[in-house]
Amino acid sequence: MLVSEKRILVEWGDCDPADIVFYPRYLEWCDACTSALFAAAGIPITSVFKVHDALGIPMVTLSARYLKPSTYGDELVVRSSVTEFRTSSFNVRHQFFKASDLSMEANETRVWVARDPSDPTGIKMKSQPIPRDVVERLSGNTAQSRV
Amino acid sequence: MLVSEKRILVEWGDCDPADIVFYPRYLEWCDACTSALFAAAGIPITSVFKVHDALGIPMVTLSARYLKPSTYGDELVVRSSVTEFRTSSFNVRHQFFKASDLSMEANETRVWVARDPSDPTGIKMKSQPIPRDVVERLSGNTAQSRV
Amino acid sequence: MLVSEKRILVEWGDCDPADIVFYPRYLEWCDACTSALFAAAGIPITSVFKVHDALGIPMVTLSARYLKPSTYGDELVVRSSVTEFRTSSFNVRHQFFKASDLSMEANETRVWVARDPSDPTGIKMKSQPIPRDVVERLSGNTAQSRV
Amino acid sequence: MLVSEKRILVEWGDCDPADIVFYPRYLEWCDACTSALFAAAGIPITSVFKVHDALGIPMVTLSARYLKPSTYGDELVVRSSVTEFRTSSFNVRHQFFKASDLSMEANETRVWVARDPSDPTGIKMKSQPIPRDVVERLSGNTAQSRV
Repeated sequence: MLVSEKRILVEWGDCDPADIVFYPRYLEWCDACTSALFAAAGIPITSVFKVHDALGIPMVTLSARYLKPSTYGDELVVRSSVTEFRTSSFNVRHQFFKASDLSMEANETRVWVARDPSDPTGIKMKSQPIPRDVVERLSGNTAQSRV
Repeated sequence: MLVSEKRILVEWGDCDPADIVFYPRYLEWCDACTSALFAAAGIPITSVFKVHDALGIPMVTLSARYLKPSTYGDELVVRSSVTEFRTSSFNVRHQFFKASDLSMEANETRVWVARDPSDPTGIKMKSQPIPRDVVERLSGNTAQSRV
Repeated sequence: MLVSEKRILVEWGDCDPADIVFYPRYLEWCDACTSALFAAAGIPITSVFKVHDALGIPMVTLSARYLKPSTYGDELVVRSSVTEFRTSSFNVRHQFFKASDLSMEANETRVWVARDPSDPTGIKMKSQPIPRDVVERLSGNTAQSRV
Repeated sequence: MLVSEKRILVEWGDCDPADIVFYPRYLEWCDACTSALFAAAGIPITSVFKVHDALGIPMVTLSARYLKPSTYGDELVVRSSVTEFRTSSFNVRHQFFKASDLSMEANETRVWVARDPSDPTGIKMKSQPIPRDVVERLSGNTAQSRV
């Protein structure tokens, strides 16, 4: 699988009165890291949804383990990759490292969503099979995906 | 003018390592307080924009004075009201009180925005005169506005 | 177990361009709901940590299921309770309801932390047994806890 | 004056249902940009406060003008510099550019704060003259400041 990396600088406003990163901030960063993963795969979210007439990849489940706290001024590196594809959903893992220490790990399940073609109003959303090109690119099989 | 009140309970995650509310949080609350002001006037934003075919009331300018810090567990009361109407823009003032002390004051200028009728694509936005009913209600002249 | 309830009004700024609550916001609310649970138990966090010389209840793990999206203007009710106590850690479950629909559920594991008594500098933190009074009150055995 | 630059990538979660950056996000970024300005001056906040026994630089007033909206995927460059020093307070201006367009401008007044030396408990805070070294470095007179 393709692994993308994103650098995060912990800012003052990310931290709480205990002087550590307030735990939901990591989950906000996960979303930015999933965006970065798509961009690294050559399918930036701002364009890939239009190409495939999709609406988004909403979160279905997520889990997180907080291993070592981070604080203002820390530089984190997040390594992100898909860990499993199913027909219309996929799992992404984000590992936040502070130097060589694993600081936090999150696993998210997202679903590929488009307008429900059976809905004449075009308002209803429905999960759809993840396009093969998206799977190939996130898998890191870019040579194959370009054939 | 109509004055609405909203209660805010300062949460742990609103505060920074100095143990005081991180200053942008107040500005987030201002947006919620402007929503509350419209609701108090009987024109909740979720419906009034549809009625008048408007798109929103984006921020044009804001200014804020931070007078006394607040911290986790504090209960604030925010008093909000329009301070001036112009043709298509208006000013709102929010005063955050901690007991009887003025903790923070913000003044915002927002503009009433709708789709540009001269744009055939319907994408462009344009400022529009604030509907008279909206002005009347935010002014607190509800009896008059119901005539 | 004691169950506390907290009402959440979804604000404009809680929502993302898909017009639904951006998923980390629920996790921020969970923290506020854990605060509310302690308050409902008669042991507000702002005082109970001082009484027991504790430093906090940092998050160790969390998991969340997103079942039905919420949007601007929705009123949610969150029901929160401890689901398990261990010696120095405990699980809290938060269920977000929109009318009678379960919108989101989160389960968190937190640990009771105090200064490490073996550290002469007083900087190191260490998990500690949860005080019996805290367990009793969060269990809803308040009569017993007052004996 | 020294001018620092910081790049901001607008993320999905920074945007609201109107598909533009929710206005308080810019103010959060301003705080990160003030941190970046201090770092660019060679006096990172995480160390300069310790060196000078200061507590922080809390916000006193801020004002902002929103000129052009930004959206998900936009890359902004923020140029930040001190615009005025007074004895114990100073003004910082942040200009957010999207390509060559000024998207948003904020002006903040912050005060240099330390423990009140006349308070035996060491809890009270008091504004203090900004250390000469800090002024010199933020002014960009680093050669002079090293004499």
